[in-house]
Amino acid sequence: MKPEREKIYVYGKHALIEALQNAPQTVKKAFLSPEADSGEIRALLNKNKIPFSPMKGNEAGRMVSKDASHQGVIAVVDPSEILLSFNDFIYGLKPDENTILVLLDELTDPQNVGAIIRSAAAFGVSGVLLPSKNQAHITGAVVKASAGMVFRIPIAEVGNVNQAVDALKEKGFRVYGLEMEGNKNVSDEKFGAPSLFIVGNEGKGIREKTFERCDVKLQIPMSSKCESLNASVSAAIVLFYWSLEHPKALK
Amino acid sequence: MKPEREKIYVYGKHALIEALQNAPQTVKKAFLSPEADSGEIRALLNKNKIPFSPMKGNEAGRMVSKDASHQGVIAVVDPSEILLSFNDFIYGLKPDENTILVLLDELTDPQNVGAIIRSAAAFGVSGVLLPSKNQAHITGAVVKASAGMVFRIPIAEVGNVNQAVDALKEKGFRVYGLEMEGNKNVSDEKFGAPSLFIVGNEGKGIREKTFERCDVKLQIPMSSKCESLNASVSAAIVLFYWSLEHPKALK
Repeated sequence: MKPEREKIYVYGKHALIEALQNAPQTVKKAFLSPEADSGEIRALLNKNKIPFSPMKGNEAGRMVSKDASHQGVIAVVDPSEILLSFNDFIYGLKPDENTILVLLDELTDPQNVGAIIRSAAAFGVSGVLLPSKNQAHITGAVVKASAGMVFRIPIAEVGNVNQAVDALKEKGFRVYGLEMEGNKNVSDEKFGAPSLFIVGNEGKGIREKTFERCDVKLQIPMSSKCESLNASVSAAIVLFYWSLEHPKALK
Repeated sequence: MKPEREKIYVYGKHALIEALQNAPQTVKKAFLSPEADSGEIRALLNKNKIPFSPMKGNEAGRMVSKDASHQGVIAVVDPSEILLSFNDFIYGLKPDENTILVLLDELTDPQNVGAIIRSAAAFGVSGVLLPSKNQAHITGAVVKASAGMVFRIPIAEVGNVNQAVDALKEKGFRVYGLEMEGNKNVSDEKFGAPSLFIVGNEGKGIREKTFERCDVKLQIPMSSKCESLNASVSAAIVLFYWSLEHPKALK
């Protein structure tokens, strides 16, 4: 059974349109300011029989932070309806050499989580795995940073990260971890098997027991001027490089 | 003459240490909470004769936003002291095939600006050019997102973007712009000349008159699932790929 998740507030026109086009069942209610009440959004809401009401003066402030650029569009979304269970996800998975999954190992910054989901959709990733604990969950900020891609690619929740890694190894996945002091440059790897790419926490990296399970410890060659890259930037570079070796995954 | 800039508040231990080690003349004053008053920071402040005082109860709230993870360290910094004028910058520049510059064309998100400066430092970029108008300037949020790299790589301010591009072309630079519908995949480009890479605004891309000046319109091949990448992610991918062709630039 999947854990109950609190409803989240998704904001911005683009994010709501992505939700309505790809996962309308997740949208419970929408609030639209008069300027934002466009024909396209209204038609999608009507088609999916989702209630909506006008957004009043300072109502937005109760739902989203004042920095959130909501463009007069806020929707109540149930994220549990887009999260698959890990078992359901791998049950249906037929991995081949064009399959790559991304596992986030306790990332805390919603901007990074959203940006990685966006890059994952861009580079043909088959699914993103999120630990159920100590990990930034799908929130309005994550949806926004993902440019709505949370509604387009499969996202599964993982109870025990190391057990999930072991289960994927049994299915033939080769496991990649990224580290500053890795033993292989990303540009020297051919990624010939189904691939699991693990992204570590922003400060602490990949946890020890998980890192021990990595078949390959990748590194991105960089200048000695800079100690590290942003987590979402590192992930995007690895996924980009993987996609160069797997153009079929972009179809 | 360079325009006057307002003082900014730089926050976080790492950012202040980077400033003190690489550009101590920019730091005018520091505030340290008792927990954050480490030997290393105090020694660097004393060495550079920079005044500091204990941070009082809710003093941080007047200087940085409440979301800013300042770790009990805030410093008043004069960003004009790290910004070069474009003329001074190119006067001393001896470009060769291992030279790449990054020009930001009116980016508005401080997270993107900081992340691009961080990736620029990582991949051997010789300088980042910022338009003086309609562009997110160096703020505390930019410094934080750059992991302090604003104090390590040259940053120059550009009054007129198109004139700057023309001046760099005269110096032998080949000009690259990134667009969804570019005419060359980034992975097909050899970057054989000094390179200027232009990053466009998050929503509108590169402005027309500037885009017309691009010798090569690059694209990053991606899945039809996803319309675009985050600006800092796209920039990092191009810089990473450029650095693969120019390992000497990482020395």
